[in-house]
Amino acid sequence: MSKAKQKIKPDKAAKRPARSPAPGSPSGSQIVHFPESEPLQLDCGGALAPFSLAYQSYGTLNEEKSNVVLVCHALTGDQHVASTHPLTGKPGWWETMVGPGKPVDTNRFFVICVNHVGGCMGSTGPMSENPETGKPYGLDFPVITIPDMVRAQARLLDHLGIADVFCVTGGSMGGMQVLEWAASFKDRVFSAIPIAAGARHSSQNIAFHEVGRQAVMADPQWCGGRYLERDKQPRKGLAVARMAAHITYLSDEALHRKFGRSLQDRARVSFGFDADFQVESYLRHQGASFVDRFDANSYLYMTRAMDYFDLAADHDGDLAQAFAGTSTRFCCVSFTSDWLFPTEEIRAVVQALNAVAADVSFVEIETDNGHDSFLLHEPELFATVSGFLSAAARTRGLDI
Amino acid sequence: MSKAKQKIKPDKAAKRPARSPAPGSPSGSQIVHFPESEPLQLDCGGALAPFSLAYQSYGTLNEEKSNVVLVCHALTGDQHVASTHPLTGKPGWWETMVGPGKPVDTNRFFVICVNHVGGCMGSTGPMSENPETGKPYGLDFPVITIPDMVRAQARLLDHLGIADVFCVTGGSMGGMQVLEWAASFKDRVFSAIPIAAGARHSSQNIAFHEVGRQAVMADPQWCGGRYLERDKQPRKGLAVARMAAHITYLSDEALHRKFGRSLQDRARVSFGFDADFQVESYLRHQGASFVDRFDANSYLYMTRAMDYFDLAADHDGDLAQAFAGTSTRFCCVSFTSDWLFPTEEIRAVVQALNAVAADVSFVEIETDNGHDSFLLHEPELFATVSGFLSAAARTRGLDI
Repeated sequence: MSKAKQKIKPDKAAKRPARSPAPGSPSGSQIVHFPESEPLQLDCGGALAPFSLAYQSYGTLNEEKSNVVLVCHALTGDQHVASTHPLTGKPGWWETMVGPGKPVDTNRFFVICVNHVGGCMGSTGPMSENPETGKPYGLDFPVITIPDMVRAQARLLDHLGIADVFCVTGGSMGGMQVLEWAASFKDRVFSAIPIAAGARHSSQNIAFHEVGRQAVMADPQWCGGRYLERDKQPRKGLAVARMAAHITYLSDEALHRKFGRSLQDRARVSFGFDADFQVESYLRHQGASFVDRFDANSYLYMTRAMDYFDLAADHDGDLAQAFAGTSTRFCCVSFTSDWLFPTEEIRAVVQALNAVAADVSFVEIETDNGHDSFLLHEPELFATVSGFLSAAARTRGLDI
Repeated sequence: MSKAKQKIKPDKAAKRPARSPAPGSPSGSQIVHFPESEPLQLDCGGALAPFSLAYQSYGTLNEEKSNVVLVCHALTGDQHVASTHPLTGKPGWWETMVGPGKPVDTNRFFVICVNHVGGCMGSTGPMSENPETGKPYGLDFPVITIPDMVRAQARLLDHLGIADVFCVTGGSMGGMQVLEWAASFKDRVFSAIPIAAGARHSSQNIAFHEVGRQAVMADPQWCGGRYLERDKQPRKGLAVARMAAHITYLSDEALHRKFGRSLQDRARVSFGFDADFQVESYLRHQGASFVDRFDANSYLYMTRAMDYFDLAADHDGDLAQAFAGTSTRFCCVSFTSDWLFPTEEIRAVVQALNAVAADVSFVEIETDNGHDSFLLHEPELFATVSGFLSAAARTRGLDI
């Protein structure tokens, strides 16, 4: 094996560095380089080589390498699950769920999260240098699918000598990957917790993504995807894309509860186009802060991967086929106010799993926090994950 | 009265001209000019003078002028209710509802629709010449509210010698105006049919509008609102705004039924950023065609007017107060799949009307067509409007 040597240092991966200036500097992450001779085969028919995968790990890998929890991050997430983000200085995106004594207990489990191929936090993506030109790939980067991302993660686990995972979990696009893992690598997944996800992207979801992509591409600073070479950034377009997407992550009820029609630092409306309302100010902030940490082309690729995902279509239109013969234990979770992945999406997965007599539990959690519930303080979610993992650990005989 | 003379020619207003090149050429409409000496007082504290209002009418005004149905158009609608649009060449936007033998029967009623002040189809708006500078107003145009628009319509009716209207109706922003009419001109409204509307704009709705405004303003061709002087058009930004808004006009179910995950003119995905999916192609078309008929600054002003609307806040936070003493007959209509103005919004209006013992009926129509249902073929809507108008006409003794 000619892979560049990388020493695995569980628990020491997060070095909590100071704020960095731009996306693509995954300080504190470990990176595995796969050389030209070991390409990643892609659904589009091409291959990516060489390629790198950046990842973070938390907890200690046991001797049997049987306590691995693979966390799959969402569209704009990254590998910084439970340690300070190197660009924003903010806590890891799932510190509510992952850490010592948390539902995904790093005192018991070895947690690993890989930045998706096509991403912008250290794994090879459109920001990376195209070896054929010596310039950033831009739109010459191949379109990546959810199965491609999962195959890349499997390659990383191979590299680490991890034959199978005790559990794979994640929300939203991460949940799609959980389902893809369970379908494509049945003998490598002991248990799976897909959260706020579905086996396909709906028409409305594709529509929202298309709006975001068009907003990015409408920005003249996008330069046909070649902005890095020209020292430009489609900041305005990407901010608009993020604003539109962000609305879909919340619920009408949550927006009403948080902001209602409250005004921002003023007693009455301005009769102008300033951010009079708190919700406007909040959205503008969401847009502006996003562009400091995320690459615009990566956003295009990540959204496309979600749009293309259709697990049933990959199995002759029969979702149950995708899971035929599975012995994985599933815990499927949805949220009542999630209108991006409403409960019926995960229910279709549960029905498919039932059709193949899989071991599946299903929890719909009552909350008004919308799609983002999986990232927030949701005690019922924590109790569900904690209980499921404990039971699964007992079943597997994990003495930890 | 120094108003410019305009002869009213019912039934001859629609001249069905050929396609015109740009917004702002309201061929076929009648226009009333209000001179400098007759300003329109505005909620922002300023006044607009001089100003013009473009309108269309259909049917014949009876001698008593008692058969007027005032139609209030929606955000991006205009006065071309039931006659070919002069720019697009398409049928009027409410030909399903208004015309000879239709629910709003132009054999019985004199139907009138006024382009909103701040609009771009002939009424004074940000495209109009600012008399102080000789250039288009742009963002120097004052921010207009729903009550401002309604006061302008009342001024036009005054000009036409119409003391009161038999019915005022409209959907979405038009429905907001119906409510404002009923609250502010109680003795001028015999009956009212607000459809797919509410007494305020929700936090989520404000959020979507803000995304649209930011998309327009992010387009460098917007030029701080001075694009007309510079012979530019923020076409890309406005198209993105329209795309985002358009998703909110449909329901998830309707998108699924119409498009699902069907591909556009191809057997398999392209692994690129073309419009692979029909829903993408459809949305792009919606965006591109919108910019041919609508002014970007007008879009900013119209969205702002909706955001500002809060009828309860205008009455000490008590919506019932807005309707106290009303003798108007109301027929409130919502659609089950409308998530822009869900049923609870109009139900709050119905409850306020009940609190003041108003004459109100309320119909929630089962459909999966979303907010746009009011524009579509909805037999139950037609039957509701037709039945309500007939009963109201009998009550008023309209012998037509």
